[in-house]
Amino acid sequence: MNVINKKIELSTRGNPDLLNITPQLSEILESSRLSKGNLTVFVIGSTAAITTFEYEPGLIQDMRDLCQKLAPSDKHYCHDETWGDANGFSHLRAAFLGPSLTIPFNEGELLLGTWQQVVLAEFDNRPRKRKIVVQIIGE
Amino acid sequence: MNVINKKIELSTRGNPDLLNITPQLSEILESSRLSKGNLTVFVIGSTAAITTFEYEPGLIQDMRDLCQKLAPSDKHYCHDETWGDANGFSHLRAAFLGPSLTIPFNEGELLLGTWQQVVLAEFDNRPRKRKIVVQIIGE
Amino acid sequence: MNVINKKIELSTRGNPDLLNITPQLSEILESSRLSKGNLTVFVIGSTAAITTFEYEPGLIQDMRDLCQKLAPSDKHYCHDETWGDANGFSHLRAAFLGPSLTIPFNEGELLLGTWQQVVLAEFDNRPRKRKIVVQIIGE
Repeated sequence: MNVINKKIELSTRGNPDLLNITPQLSEILESSRLSKGNLTVFVIGSTAAITTFEYEPGLIQDMRDLCQKLAPSDKHYCHDETWGDANGFSHLRAAFLGPSLTIPFNEGELLLGTWQQVVLAEFDNRPRKRKIVVQIIGE
Repeated sequence: MNVINKKIELSTRGNPDLLNITPQLSEILESSRLSKGNLTVFVIGSTAAITTFEYEPGLIQDMRDLCQKLAPSDKHYCHDETWGDANGFSHLRAAFLGPSLTIPFNEGELLLGTWQQVVLAEFDNRPRKRKIVVQIIGE
Repeated sequence: MNVINKKIELSTRGNPDLLNITPQLSEILESSRLSKGNLTVFVIGSTAAITTFEYEPGLIQDMRDLCQKLAPSDKHYCHDETWGDANGFSHLRAAFLGPSLTIPFNEGELLLGTWQQVVLAEFDNRPRKRKIVVQIIGE
């Protein structure tokens, strides 16, 4: 049984930027040469999240629309007064979707559906450099 | 330390179908004979999710109502144009609730509350055959 | 590779009570003397959840407001008829945020952002004694 600690570094555009990171995860898993276990994806920071969905333009737009309905970007939030960076909506969306996702793998393959991609949701209102931890525990 | 990879296969009815899978998880854990570790539940596909709630008829209805409020099934979504299968709402609900849940166990028992059941949320708009991965890592 | 099973016990005030539990998690990780792996936080019960956000008064208020918008506490829920405890909203919020969070660690440190705290969200409508499982798997 092994623990392997890797990192993905990405530049994002913000508000929101939804990025398919499945290819990078598959590549990291393959290079680990582990066969069976869990791969945990964790985005560092409080204005981004990790989830899965079918990564196609229509649904990307639907996700943007639903995020806007949940926590509108043009509303005033108490958090905006704390730092003056006007990204209260980014924090709220990130807290609701969550920063962590654990995906099982077997025979060296992530057990995702064919149309189920792992997506980094950048909710901040400006471009960011993101670090995403990829922690693999398995054998 | 061991990794055990199991699968639950279920038929669902859709829109939404909320199914208590706690008994199957407990049975898989018991047959693993492991005492201490984590059990990860992961539903394959992008129109279903895993969460926990008190599995009783009133709350099942409340969950259905809240899902309908979050992403109404009678609204048009951009995703509906991509495949013509009119289940944009299913994808959105699944992405928000998430496909993965990790539950610790100790002394061979899942550390759930008495009224805390693990629920498969089928959000698709038609019956489906579902595969749920149950990955146990422990000793 | 080891599994370490710990528990945090807390008194909460309810509706909602948002508590930063990061210091307790760091302390448990440090005392485990493990260097690399995952720490899973799981709240037992169906009216509380775990997430991460920047723990400052403005955002705490924004989280309270968004929870109230998602599942208002002054609305009637079907669940309220089951037990007569009027906390349907608490169950719904908990099911949407989720009870489980897995955080990678490396070189003995949780890989959280500087302004990313782990928060117990108590959604019940009364003070509770909460048990939070902290399960560490690593080496």
